[in-house]
Amino acid sequence: MPDEHLTAEDLRDVWPVLSLDERFSGFQELSRGEADDFFLGLSAGDQSQMLAEMPGGERRWWIRLLAPDDAVDVLQRVSPARRAELLGALDEPTRTEVTALLAYAEDAAGGLMSPRFARLRPEMTVDEAIRYLRCQARERLETIYYAYVVDAGQHLRGVVSFRDLFAAGEGEALANMMKTDVVSVPDHLDQEAVARVIARYNLSAVPVVDVEGRIKGIVTLDDIVHVVQRAATEDIQKLGGMEALETPYLQTGLFHMVKKRAGWLAALFLGEMLTASAMSHYEDEIARAVVLALFVPLIISSGGNSGSQATTLIIRAMALGEVKLRDWWRVVRRELASGLALGCVLACIGFARILLWQTFLHSYGEHYFRVAATVAVSLIGVVTWGTVAGSMLPFLIRRAGFDPASASAPFVATLVDVSGLVIYFSVAEVILRGALL
Amino acid sequence: MPDEHLTAEDLRDVWPVLSLDERFSGFQELSRGEADDFFLGLSAGDQSQMLAEMPGGERRWWIRLLAPDDAVDVLQRVSPARRAELLGALDEPTRTEVTALLAYAEDAAGGLMSPRFARLRPEMTVDEAIRYLRCQARERLETIYYAYVVDAGQHLRGVVSFRDLFAAGEGEALANMMKTDVVSVPDHLDQEAVARVIARYNLSAVPVVDVEGRIKGIVTLDDIVHVVQRAATEDIQKLGGMEALETPYLQTGLFHMVKKRAGWLAALFLGEMLTASAMSHYEDEIARAVVLALFVPLIISSGGNSGSQATTLIIRAMALGEVKLRDWWRVVRRELASGLALGCVLACIGFARILLWQTFLHSYGEHYFRVAATVAVSLIGVVTWGTVAGSMLPFLIRRAGFDPASASAPFVATLVDVSGLVIYFSVAEVILRGALL
Repeated sequence: MPDEHLTAEDLRDVWPVLSLDERFSGFQELSRGEADDFFLGLSAGDQSQMLAEMPGGERRWWIRLLAPDDAVDVLQRVSPARRAELLGALDEPTRTEVTALLAYAEDAAGGLMSPRFARLRPEMTVDEAIRYLRCQARERLETIYYAYVVDAGQHLRGVVSFRDLFAAGEGEALANMMKTDVVSVPDHLDQEAVARVIARYNLSAVPVVDVEGRIKGIVTLDDIVHVVQRAATEDIQKLGGMEALETPYLQTGLFHMVKKRAGWLAALFLGEMLTASAMSHYEDEIARAVVLALFVPLIISSGGNSGSQATTLIIRAMALGEVKLRDWWRVVRRELASGLALGCVLACIGFARILLWQTFLHSYGEHYFRVAATVAVSLIGVVTWGTVAGSMLPFLIRRAGFDPASASAPFVATLVDVSGLVIYFSVAEVILRGALL
Repeated sequence: MPDEHLTAEDLRDVWPVLSLDERFSGFQELSRGEADDFFLGLSAGDQSQMLAEMPGGERRWWIRLLAPDDAVDVLQRVSPARRAELLGALDEPTRTEVTALLAYAEDAAGGLMSPRFARLRPEMTVDEAIRYLRCQARERLETIYYAYVVDAGQHLRGVVSFRDLFAAGEGEALANMMKTDVVSVPDHLDQEAVARVIARYNLSAVPVVDVEGRIKGIVTLDDIVHVVQRAATEDIQKLGGMEALETPYLQTGLFHMVKKRAGWLAALFLGEMLTASAMSHYEDEIARAVVLALFVPLIISSGGNSGSQATTLIIRAMALGEVKLRDWWRVVRRELASGLALGCVLACIGFARILLWQTFLHSYGEHYFRVAATVAVSLIGVVTWGTVAGSMLPFLIRRAGFDPASASAPFVATLVDVSGLVIYFSVAEVILRGALL
């Protein structure tokens, strides 16, 4: 680092490309006031890395700075021994809150929520509520802009926005002006489903309730932006045919990254070996008609590409909630029609290509016309099959209880490659019988 | 629809699977109060579809219900004639606001912002500001929770949160308590960059300023959730090897969808035709050693799969701002090392497979050991090349000024297939010379 004073802004700019050591020394160079904001703005992963680098006394100070839901995110990322140490550093009421939150799965509504929300009682008047919230403005509540009206048993009865309170008459009772049809989510709901609820109803915050309808916390819109971004990254990486990384690309260790990629790559390779077996099966045909081998890559890649389009479309539509399991039959029909249309387009191009080359460049032998017909008919079959198989795979994987995003483009391509060969050589046997075969 | 009263909740549930006609008749069945909320919760695309179905008089009523930034989103989706009609339906001040916003590109900060934000003056006291915002609570401001302090020339001087106002002393001047290091974005900034700024600084809203530092509007967090979701969908669809759809999967007409997919599929097919030319080039070798043909699909798909992993990783890292153009050299080195490691893993598996089959199942001829060596060495070459090429393609595409997400998995696979064949047959010529070739 240069000798001038390092600002939080400078550090933020270079942060992604720094090593852990450089990050920590940069962080320590910040002035106290800047360091606070900077630390609070870090991801939970980065926060836990900074904490790990610090001496114990300092660590206790920084963990106390975090809101309970953020502290939970950090605690979920550290070793059990460190977790106990950090929990011990919290004050008693916060420790109770944090321990309760730790019981929830990290990717459920309960693991995402903050327990520090504003509670009001239905019998309060508007000006009592405003005065109460005003007192809370200095406290570390997640937001004072939405307040939840609960009865003595903590059951959620309604919600008021600060804005509505301001616009209402001062003496009015909350019971008369609160919104009673509150959208809430159960505490075990998956975080991506929570994100969909928030987006669907255009909410700034959503209350989280247990099975008895008691409010346990709130999830706010800013928590959701990270969930949405993170979920998309995981899906994209899975679609690329690998396991999702937990850390940004340049921060991921080389060995770790190779491990994340090697598993799927080896699995796909083992699957793809079936193509060698399929090709062996047709070895005699290839020996008799070498011209057939020339179009093998073209045929199988067309199936792979059309399958990749279909599977990508369906996986994303599922992730956005646009397509549900029960829609599979509608999807099959659509994709069958699309596949046929796309197959015909490629068949025409392929047919024309072979006749053109035959005329000007390269001879495919006396039976070139039958060869062209074989390629064209195979393309229709392979593309239609690739499209339908690619669209159905996410349904099958989801039905089996796994993440549909695992039906990556390379996975579909591998699946379609073997069947593409079978289609191609079967078509060849029919069309070229008596001619080349 | 059944004869019971249709609620907004029911309609929301079935909305994605309804035809346009069913949607409109469902929408008309809603009670007035429910219809308002329902309409405001629709996407701009759906809002413009509903407007198109309505008689003119009703249309005028509904367009007036929208906030200026939302009205702009709708107007950007309709024909010029309809746009003029709808603009004419707005009241004079809103029309002025909307016309100003229409001048911005839809995907820039200016096209996303709302001009209805709370403005305060630095010489106001805290209680004056609270009283002023209280008056505004009933107005259709985007938010009263953040207010922007501007001078007489509308230059942005500071920001105050409602919460800070509440916690501050009543008589204090805003100039003394406002936050002056305000994060703002220029009005022409791309919306995905705006999303990154909001996420980076954990903001609820960000002010948009023109080149002279005058505030023009604000972009709020809820606008950004849709941008983030939408951007990820577009990237995922492009990664799947097609053009991005503008509408949800099940709402996209079949013809339109085939068009979006056929373009890329045909382009990839034309590229993949080079494999047929490459194979023709090696036709004699294949005729002499048919065994070589058996491993063609295995070799080229391995290159495609490893390239797909690399390109997906880099494209996502670029979209998240984790990797910049200047990082290309770091990426090359990382991917070269990863590619070599992954290639060695596959080479070992491939080598073992051929020797195993040779022993138990299928004979690859007397030179089986050289064949196995050819496959293994080719795999190292093809996987390393696929990985490096896949990781560099997004850089090249971005450098050329296009969207790096166009470097889809199928695109990379096609690119790598041709070079994979050349690598494979070149290795074969060296290792099998004097034996099979």
